Amino acid sequence: MVAINCDMGESFGIYHCGDDEGLMPFVTVANVACGFHASDPRVMTQTVRLAKAHGVKVGAHPSLPDKEGFGRREMKLDRDELTAACVYQIGALSGFLRAEGMELNHVKAHGSLYGMAARDEEVAAALADAADVFDAPLMGMAGTVHEKVWGDRRAGFISEYYADLDYRDDGSLIITRVHEAFDPQTSAAGAVRAVTEGKATSVNGKELPVRADCVCVHSDTPNAVELARAVHDALAPHLT
Amino acid sequence: MVAINCDMGESFGIYHCGDDEGLMPFVTVANVACGFHASDPRVMTQTVRLAKAHGVKVGAHPSLPDKEGFGRREMKLDRDELTAACVYQIGALSGFLRAEGMELNHVKAHGSLYGMAARDEEVAAALADAADVFDAPLMGMAGTVHEKVWGDRRAGFISEYYADLDYRDDGSLIITRVHEAFDPQTSAAGAVRAVTEGKATSVNGKELPVRADCVCVHSDTPNAVELARAVHDALAPHLT
Amino acid sequence: MVAINCDMGESFGIYHCGDDEGLMPFVTVANVACGFHASDPRVMTQTVRLAKAHGVKVGAHPSLPDKEGFGRREMKLDRDELTAACVYQIGALSGFLRAEGMELNHVKAHGSLYGMAARDEEVAAALADAADVFDAPLMGMAGTVHEKVWGDRRAGFISEYYADLDYRDDGSLIITRVHEAFDPQTSAAGAVRAVTEGKATSVNGKELPVRADCVCVHSDTPNAVELARAVHDALAPHLT
Amino acid sequence: MVAINCDMGESFGIYHCGDDEGLMPFVTVANVACGFHASDPRVMTQTVRLAKAHGVKVGAHPSLPDKEGFGRREMKLDRDELTAACVYQIGALSGFLRAEGMELNHVKAHGSLYGMAARDEEVAAALADAADVFDAPLMGMAGTVHEKVWGDRRAGFISEYYADLDYRDDGSLIITRVHEAFDPQTSAAGAVRAVTEGKATSVNGKELPVRADCVCVHSDTPNAVELARAVHDALAPHLT
Repeated sequence: MVAINCDMGESFGIYHCGDDEGLMPFVTVANVACGFHASDPRVMTQTVRLAKAHGVKVGAHPSLPDKEGFGRREMKLDRDELTAACVYQIGALSGFLRAEGMELNHVKAHGSLYGMAARDEEVAAALADAADVFDAPLMGMAGTVHEKVWGDRRAGFISEYYADLDYRDDGSLIITRVHEAFDPQTSAAGAVRAVTEGKATSVNGKELPVRADCVCVHSDTPNAVELARAVHDALAPHLT
Repeated sequence: MVAINCDMGESFGIYHCGDDEGLMPFVTVANVACGFHASDPRVMTQTVRLAKAHGVKVGAHPSLPDKEGFGRREMKLDRDELTAACVYQIGALSGFLRAEGMELNHVKAHGSLYGMAARDEEVAAALADAADVFDAPLMGMAGTVHEKVWGDRRAGFISEYYADLDYRDDGSLIITRVHEAFDPQTSAAGAVRAVTEGKATSVNGKELPVRADCVCVHSDTPNAVELARAVHDALAPHLT
Repeated sequence: MVAINCDMGESFGIYHCGDDEGLMPFVTVANVACGFHASDPRVMTQTVRLAKAHGVKVGAHPSLPDKEGFGRREMKLDRDELTAACVYQIGALSGFLRAEGMELNHVKAHGSLYGMAARDEEVAAALADAADVFDAPLMGMAGTVHEKVWGDRRAGFISEYYADLDYRDDGSLIITRVHEAFDPQTSAAGAVRAVTEGKATSVNGKELPVRADCVCVHSDTPNAVELARAVHDALAPHLT
Repeated sequence: MVAINCDMGESFGIYHCGDDEGLMPFVTVANVACGFHASDPRVMTQTVRLAKAHGVKVGAHPSLPDKEGFGRREMKLDRDELTAACVYQIGALSGFLRAEGMELNHVKAHGSLYGMAARDEEVAAALADAADVFDAPLMGMAGTVHEKVWGDRRAGFISEYYADLDYRDDGSLIITRVHEAFDPQTSAAGAVRAVTEGKATSVNGKELPVRADCVCVHSDTPNAVELARAVHDALAPHLT
C-alpha cells in the first residue's frame, strides 16, 4: 500500500502558488506549508479544509524561517532553535487540523531544511525531536541521513520515491531550480515499478533499488495536474 | 478562588523583556506570547519550561501580526483572517505545551487586539471562534464586549481585575504608554478587596463593582516583582 | 503634457504579480514597490533596470509594513513613525536608482496608505514630510486631503485620473477588491477627454471636473496590457 | 589620524540594545543598523539625529535578513541578491542621512555577513558592488578576504583594530557569543600602540603587526561606555 504526497498550501497573501484545487483529487496526503517559507493563517485554513473535502490526509511541511527565499536558502540554526522552529510550525498546523477534527499524518521538511537533514545528523535529529512531540512519522529519502536518524525514532520513517525527478546513478536526485515538464506516462510507469518491484532506472539507464512507502509529485512542474492524475490512476490498486 | 496572571515570554532573539524568572514564583497562570508581537520559538520553549518548573499554568497570548509595534498598533483584519491568525498562534503554543506534557489553560489577547475586542463584537467573535477550537476560556474585562460575546461561548469567560492600574469612575482602565510604579501594599489591598468584596475604588474615590476571577499584574511596571510578590502574598489564602 | 503611471515591481521571492514586461512599453512613469507591501531587493533591482531599459521614469510606491495583507489592511502608526517608514522605503528605492544613474521622479503611496492619506491630514502630512526629504512630488487625487496637504508642499502635487475605474457622482472612485476588466477603447477615450477637456463622466452619467496631470492604469486588471496599450496610443500626442 | 567606530542603533520597537547615548560622545564614526538584523525606521531616525548632535559620522551597517537571529546565523544568498540586499539597506540609511543633511561615511557589514566576507570572495565582492554604488569605503580586517577584495575597489578599504577583543597568534580574533568585560586601560594602551606602532600582542604574548585606520569598540561589552571613554581619551591626539 502506498500514498501519493504533494506540497500544498504554498500561496501567501495575494500571491498564488500551485494548483491545489486541481491536484488535490490525485493525492492521498498533502504536505501543508506552515507559514515560514510560504502560506499564512488564512491559506492554512483553506488548505486544510480543501484536503478534508477530498479525504486527503494532512502532514506538516515545516521550513527554515525565510519567506523571501521560499525556504531554499540554507541557514545555520542551532539544534535546539531548529527543533523549536519546527514545534512552532507543526503546532500551528495542528491547530487548523483540530479545527476540522483531523489528525496530523506526518512531517515532511521543506526545501533546504529537507536537503540539510539528508546530509547532517544534527539537523535530522532536530527535526526528529520536533516530530516526536507530535508522534508523527517523518517523510524522507532512504539511503540518506533521513533514514539513518529517523529510522530509529519512535514515530517512524516513511521513504518516498520521486515520480517527477530524475535519479543519478548513485541514487541521488537531480534537482533543478525550476522543475521541467515530465512525461506523465513515464512518471506513472516509474511509480508503479518503484512500488511493485522496488526498482528505478537512473538517468543513465542504471537500475537502482528504491523503497517507495509513498510517491511524491510536485505542484510546480509545468504539467503537474496531468502528471499527478497519471500517477494516481496507475497506482490506484495500491493506494492506501 | 482566584488566579494571578501575567504576560510572559515577551523577549525576542537577543532582546530581553520582562523579568520572567523573578515574576514566575508569584503568579499562578502565565499568558505566553506566541511570536506575533513578541517572542520566537526558542523563547516560547524556555517560557513554557519555566512555567512548568514553577507549577504555573499556561495560556496563549495572541496578538495582531506586528512585532515592530509590539502588537500595540491597531490593524484592520477580516474576521476570518483574525480567527485564523489566532488559531495559528494558539496552535503553535499548544505544540510547546504538548512537548512538556501540559494543557492549554486559557487565551488572553494582547495589546490592541485585547482593546479592540473590548469594543468590537466582530473582533471578539473572531477571538472566540479561535479559542473554541481549543476549548479554552477567554480572559477579559467584565462590562465590556469581552463579557458580552465571550460569556455565551462554550469555553467560558474569565473576568480579570488589574492590580497595578487605576480605574476611572466609569470602571474603565487608565492605560499609559509606559507603566508607572504602583505601591505594592496598595495593589495588594486592592486585589484582596476586589476578590473578597467584589469592589474597587476609582482614581477619584468612587466605589466600583468588579468581578475578579483572576488578578492581573504587568511585567513592565518598574517594580513588577515586588508588586507581584505583595499581591501574591496577600491573596495566598484565595489562590487556586 | 501628461504621464501614464502604473504600479510595478510587486512580485516577491518566487511569487509573481503583474505583467511588468508587458506593461512597461505603455507607461511613462512606474510606481515601484519598496518592500513593505510587496517586492524584495532583487525584484527592486530588476524593476528599476526594466524601467530604465524602456526609458520609463521611476517613483517610489511606499506602503504600510504588511506584506501578508499587501498593504491593504489599515494600521494606525504615529505620524513620526509613518514618516520614518516612508523615508526608509523611498531611501531604499533611491539606492537602486543611484545604481542605475537614475533620479527619483515622484512618490505615490500604496493601498491603504493612499486611502488613509486621502482622508486624514496627519497621514498626508507624514507622507509629505518624507517626500520633501527627497524633493519628490506626491501623486494623488485632486479634491481630497491629498491635494489639500500636498498642494502646499515644496515638492508639489501631481493629480491623477484613473483610466480603469468608475467614478461616483461625487467624484470618488469605486474601488473593488478585485479589479474587473474594463473596455480599452472606453478607457482610452475617457483618458483623452480627462486630459484635453478636464472632464469625466460618472457611472450614473453625471459630468465631473477632473484634473489629469497623469493617468493611472492598474497592473491587476484582467486585460491590463491591452488597456494600457489603448490608453498609451490614444494619449500619444500628449505624453511627456 | 584614526577613527573610533561602534555599532549603534540596534534597538527595535520596544526593545532596547546598547547605550547609544552613553557611547556617542566617545566615538567618531557610528555603524548604524539598517533594519535587517536590528532597528526599525524610527530607531534609524533617532540614531542618525543622535550622531549628528555629537558630530559623529555615520556609516551603514548592513546585515543578512534575519532579525530573530540578529544577523548572526549564516545564510546562503546568491551574489546578486546579496548585493541587492545591501543596496536596499544602505539606500534606506542614506534617506535618513539626507533628511539630516549628512553624508554616508562608510559601510561595515554586520555579524555573520562580516565574517562570511572575511572568508569568501563572492560575499566580499557582493558587498563591494553595493558599497561602490554609494562611493563608500568598506571597513574590515586587514589580512583577510576583506582586504584582498576591497583593497582594489574604487571606494577603498578601512582596516580596523579591535580594542575590546583578544587576538590569536595568527592574528585572528577570539569572538565569544557574549562579550566579556575588558580592562579599559589595557584596551586604551593597546589601541594607542596599534595606532602609533602598528603592533598588537596576541593572547599568548606574541607580537602581531596590525593596521589600525580605525579602532572598533563594541556596545555590548559589559563596561562598554567606560571602555570607550578610556580608548577615546588615550587616542585623543590621533583622532580625525
